Amino acid sequence: MDGGEVPADDSKAAIAHGGDLDAARRLFPEAPEPWLDLSTGINPVPYPLPPFEASALHRLPSPGDLARLKAAAAAAYGAPGPDHVVAAPGTQILIETLPRLRPPCRVAVVGPTYAEHAAAWTRSGHAVRMVDDPAEAGNAEVLVAVSPNNPDGRVFSTTALGCAGAGLVVLDQAFADLEPVEAVSPRPGLVVLRSFGKTYGLAGIRLGFALAEPALARRIETALGPWAVSGLAIVAGLAALPDAAWRREAAAARAQDAARLDRMIGRAGGRLVGGTALFRTAEFSDGPGLFRALGEAGIYVRRFAESPSRLRFGLPPDKAAWCRLSRVLK
Amino acid sequence: MDGGEVPADDSKAAIAHGGDLDAARRLFPEAPEPWLDLSTGINPVPYPLPPFEASALHRLPSPGDLARLKAAAAAAYGAPGPDHVVAAPGTQILIETLPRLRPPCRVAVVGPTYAEHAAAWTRSGHAVRMVDDPAEAGNAEVLVAVSPNNPDGRVFSTTALGCAGAGLVVLDQAFADLEPVEAVSPRPGLVVLRSFGKTYGLAGIRLGFALAEPALARRIETALGPWAVSGLAIVAGLAALPDAAWRREAAAARAQDAARLDRMIGRAGGRLVGGTALFRTAEFSDGPGLFRALGEAGIYVRRFAESPSRLRFGLPPDKAAWCRLSRVLK
Repeated sequence: MDGGEVPADDSKAAIAHGGDLDAARRLFPEAPEPWLDLSTGINPVPYPLPPFEASALHRLPSPGDLARLKAAAAAAYGAPGPDHVVAAPGTQILIETLPRLRPPCRVAVVGPTYAEHAAAWTRSGHAVRMVDDPAEAGNAEVLVAVSPNNPDGRVFSTTALGCAGAGLVVLDQAFADLEPVEAVSPRPGLVVLRSFGKTYGLAGIRLGFALAEPALARRIETALGPWAVSGLAIVAGLAALPDAAWRREAAAARAQDAARLDRMIGRAGGRLVGGTALFRTAEFSDGPGLFRALGEAGIYVRRFAESPSRLRFGLPPDKAAWCRLSRVLK
Repeated sequence: MDGGEVPADDSKAAIAHGGDLDAARRLFPEAPEPWLDLSTGINPVPYPLPPFEASALHRLPSPGDLARLKAAAAAAYGAPGPDHVVAAPGTQILIETLPRLRPPCRVAVVGPTYAEHAAAWTRSGHAVRMVDDPAEAGNAEVLVAVSPNNPDGRVFSTTALGCAGAGLVVLDQAFADLEPVEAVSPRPGLVVLRSFGKTYGLAGIRLGFALAEPALARRIETALGPWAVSGLAIVAGLAALPDAAWRREAAAARAQDAARLDRMIGRAGGRLVGGTALFRTAEFSDGPGLFRALGEAGIYVRRFAESPSRLRFGLPPDKAAWCRLSRVLK
């Protein structure tokens, strides 16, 4: 769900991810607690969950609950209707599921990007090629792009993606909700992924969506089986997705945060690569040194094994966190 | 997750399930509200969730959180260690996942049983045959059994299952936790499914486990991807799984409930087929008539399209619910 990288020495996992403070503690055992985790791109100001009935935890979510959630998602994301929506316990499991629905074929992934896409298609036996740009997709039958891209913030238009000529475009808009980017509606040959947890600061609840034409949506939903999302995820989605005012205010507030972070990065000698309202990626003359200085101060950011000069910063959640970060980025 | 049946007229879904009160309302629009839902086999007295930090909902569950959950599950279920455990958002998604990890082969499912097993193996291209008994598995390469079985409560020993000669036995112990049945440890050729939601009355939280030898456990886990279970599911699992006293008391209390339900069923002329501490299945001279009488009183039980004389009852949650049921079962 959060930007993956090639494994570094601090992980035995195939792909390292942000958000793992245990890994941070192993790297910097002397760092002050509590850690300030800036290694993810999750909204640090969560949507306030409404009070809910305990039965949401006790009973199985009903088909009616799920239908209402899908209708709310269709309205929020501009899909034609609930039959175009698949609800899942996070987008990650959708990334795992899509490659299994096709026989092995040629896949192009626009990158560098979130590493789980290429890994999942490869695991399912597809021939995966990384490309810098959609125009280089060549004879790929499936084209995967993250837009805005993680970690560099690049945005790809559906026109550019459509021109690549792939039979299926997978457009991961995990970071699109708070951005001034085009609303993309699913259509034959285009499946869109949307993350609930990042936008609403509720990553632990596990909720994400695929938007696709009804036949493909039904196939994805069948692969997940009934009751894929929890009762609490449904409560959260039904409250937050229709709340356009909250999302508008969050977009404005996080954009201000991002601009503040850019100024701080600039003062520390960083050259901004790009980002979204939820994370900023920059290059530093001594990336590993800054990563270490931050880590020793108990601040965990994302580094990239293949681009050691590059660091990615999530947004500090509050005034104390901003102060703490500014004491290192000076 | 709950006993599925062949689709009846009240459902467009491929397999009908318990717990869908919207379906009950469509069948009995005049019934008094609130409905008493006895159509599932979920513990009606839930495990009391401990207070938890909001960060469990906000941040991504860490690898350390997941490792602790798997260790607690290994201890609770008698698996050799956390490397034998896969945590999933409910056992249903494990039922969907297992068939995808093997090339098409011959599968025997002991039934009638929970219908999603046969459906999932069939969807993945396997040749599925229903058998009455493990001894009839013949040349099946995979043998699937639910023990105690849903809906008839039959118990199959691992010896009987092992003798069938299948290369892989899938033993769904969704209803085993509160029963005096053998604790089954995973071993090569045997994968065990355990349901958290049914035992602990927390079906809406979505948590279930597969127990398998480490190589297979790793393959299942990889197919689900990182962050498959929510932060709240981890909180609930870490609190409930080590609480052997609660599970012991729940087993005794639900066994008493089950015996009380048996007496009530007997008074109403029902002949007990079997069940577990969480549901009882019985035959009635006029099953459809009793289903209707219960429905008109706002009590939803499970019926079975292929066995119309058969009804399955979950446990009433409290005194008022017991009284309500006894007014119809008289």
